Amino acid sequence: MKCAGDIEVRQVDEMAINIDPIQVGGRLTADAMKAVIAYGDGYSVCDNCRKPFRLDYIKKPPIADFHAELASWLSMDACRLVPGARRGFQAVCQGLVSKGDPVILTALSHYTEFLGVESTGGLPREIQKNAENRITADAAAETIERVIREEGKTPSLLFVEGVDYQYGNHHEIKEISRVAHSYDIPVLYNGAYTVGILPVDGKALGVDFVIGSGHKSMAAPAPSGLVATTDEYAETIFATTAVKGDQTGRTFGIKEIAMMGCTLMGVTVMGMMASFPHVKERVLRWDEELAKSRIVTDALLSIEGTTILSEMPRRHTLTRIDTRASFDRVAATHKKRGFFLSSALSKMGITGVIPGATKIWKLNTYGMTMAQAEYTADAFREIATENGLSLSD
Amino acid sequence: MKCAGDIEVRQVDEMAINIDPIQVGGRLTADAMKAVIAYGDGYSVCDNCRKPFRLDYIKKPPIADFHAELASWLSMDACRLVPGARRGFQAVCQGLVSKGDPVILTALSHYTEFLGVESTGGLPREIQKNAENRITADAAAETIERVIREEGKTPSLLFVEGVDYQYGNHHEIKEISRVAHSYDIPVLYNGAYTVGILPVDGKALGVDFVIGSGHKSMAAPAPSGLVATTDEYAETIFATTAVKGDQTGRTFGIKEIAMMGCTLMGVTVMGMMASFPHVKERVLRWDEELAKSRIVTDALLSIEGTTILSEMPRRHTLTRIDTRASFDRVAATHKKRGFFLSSALSKMGITGVIPGATKIWKLNTYGMTMAQAEYTADAFREIATENGLSLSD
Repeated sequence: MKCAGDIEVRQVDEMAINIDPIQVGGRLTADAMKAVIAYGDGYSVCDNCRKPFRLDYIKKPPIADFHAELASWLSMDACRLVPGARRGFQAVCQGLVSKGDPVILTALSHYTEFLGVESTGGLPREIQKNAENRITADAAAETIERVIREEGKTPSLLFVEGVDYQYGNHHEIKEISRVAHSYDIPVLYNGAYTVGILPVDGKALGVDFVIGSGHKSMAAPAPSGLVATTDEYAETIFATTAVKGDQTGRTFGIKEIAMMGCTLMGVTVMGMMASFPHVKERVLRWDEELAKSRIVTDALLSIEGTTILSEMPRRHTLTRIDTRASFDRVAATHKKRGFFLSSALSKMGITGVIPGATKIWKLNTYGMTMAQAEYTADAFREIATENGLSLSD
Repeated sequence: MKCAGDIEVRQVDEMAINIDPIQVGGRLTADAMKAVIAYGDGYSVCDNCRKPFRLDYIKKPPIADFHAELASWLSMDACRLVPGARRGFQAVCQGLVSKGDPVILTALSHYTEFLGVESTGGLPREIQKNAENRITADAAAETIERVIREEGKTPSLLFVEGVDYQYGNHHEIKEISRVAHSYDIPVLYNGAYTVGILPVDGKALGVDFVIGSGHKSMAAPAPSGLVATTDEYAETIFATTAVKGDQTGRTFGIKEIAMMGCTLMGVTVMGMMASFPHVKERVLRWDEELAKSRIVTDALLSIEGTTILSEMPRRHTLTRIDTRASFDRVAATHKKRGFFLSSALSKMGITGVIPGATKIWKLNTYGMTMAQAEYTADAFREIATENGLSLSD
């Protein structure tokens, strides 16, 4: 078994139009790639680490500034980097959720949110989605009432997704926050598909925690992410160590328990930081991304039998499609069966659709050029007509 | 504030001989750098993720094989990657340490071990070091007895360092494991300075957990690390999720709670994997590393007033030096004061000593060539004589 020998160079995003639902927001910028090369070595950012010896205090490279800037960019008071959004969920749960506490999630919560709750012994309770696959404040209120009534305990935290991973739908964040706060329940905003993709203002949303993913949505290497919070909760979530060596009397200064001290050294923090100026700009061009997304979804909708399961009009580039009455009908008799679709796309230089998927699947057009959007739209239409499906306009 | 503009290219390990105690084992190999460039994008390793959708099952690139090979290389039964050794400590504590449990650490335990214990509410209890700064089985037995007597509870876990971060000393791992097991206390071996540096055989050591650091000792980008264990403990530490969405009925398959599902995507896992064939070879050349280390420590010892605080003869490349009666005496009257040492070293192309340090400090010669070791030895002697310190031979 020779691992290194088996590593093929990956050129997916250089050689093809990638529409993979989870990959497109995490492709590196050229500046991130340069930083990755310069800071590849393990503890590369620690050259100038001085008292008080914590990653987020390092001034050169300007990691301290980066932390401050992230907090203000999200309209929050404090921010820390973490190895992925999931580690942000875990950190918040560690601070707020005790064994046996009910915690509110949604019917569209990601599995990592459930694991965060499970990691500290919390009991996940879901808010149901409505017929449009959206999470509403009314449903949140009902769920909170139900949990308090049935379990005799106020939930210690409420998770809600800015945009969920299944439909790419937006939810009633502001209104849900208001409801949760009326019960004194803090709100965690899962920004895995929004922070770094579209403008996010934590204060305007009224949430207590904003979690973001570097490798999913901030053009950063994995694993990377952030957890931002308000002054009200910073001391709880970023509590510093209080233990002492009983024989040596050692204490450990300002190291934060839930962060496990220093978090993202080297390549991850530097990649995230180098992409950040570009990320700040790209969120302001969100309308252009939506326009490109609509070019592709319009093409898909024009294929007979195809429906979009996400909310319409699209307000995100991640979209859930139902092609059971179109491409899957083709698959039933095609000699390549379900693989005909990914195979045909692949021949046209489009990748990221799970091979074999022709029923319900997802795509994400984020970061395409306008020409690529039009090409992708044409490709879907062409594959449809080649396989005997008719097009409307 | 322009983050990206402020990032200077880092060339420390290309342009100088680095003797930084924490950095030298984590410098990338050329193969790791190639992998980092190819897999820089966030979710780059997920192209071929198929059921059951978990990182350590991915076959292309061969991440599944890599996990199996790591376990067998350490003579353990199962292995997972984690974002740094510290996340391995946290995962083991999550599985074994409940609030109020006493946990045994040592007087030489790293702060991240304490944070791991603190993160689940455990109570750290230290084994004292002996006069030679070593942790012995006798001291471990005394500590266990004392804790059981005073707290009326058997400790739920014992941490011990293969080689500690302060002195670079070896400790009585096998004997301590035997003692701990006689009380049914599982043993966690902190291999942050050994796994990837020198041969480690978990079975021969008799430990239940082996934790390694990718960015400290396996020529990998940060944050990366591993936790390996036996069949006896794998089910506890790598327990899969058992929660269920109460409204949707969703369950989350084989995602592991303490791992938070998938762990190291992209650049971290691929860098670690690409370096691994080289890492396996380099641990077999450990004697050569010790020979180079001794060339440098002999030179330091030849400077009047200098002593080595680590065990002698050196059995690790990380060494703690006391130059209070040599270089610090120079600093008292030197116009650059304490900075004269790092400054003189820097002029000679040697980096990694904290600027201003002339009292008690550490260096690590790992990975030098023989010529660099001799050059570094000469440099220390030259700085000494230039500043009026005499040399013995």
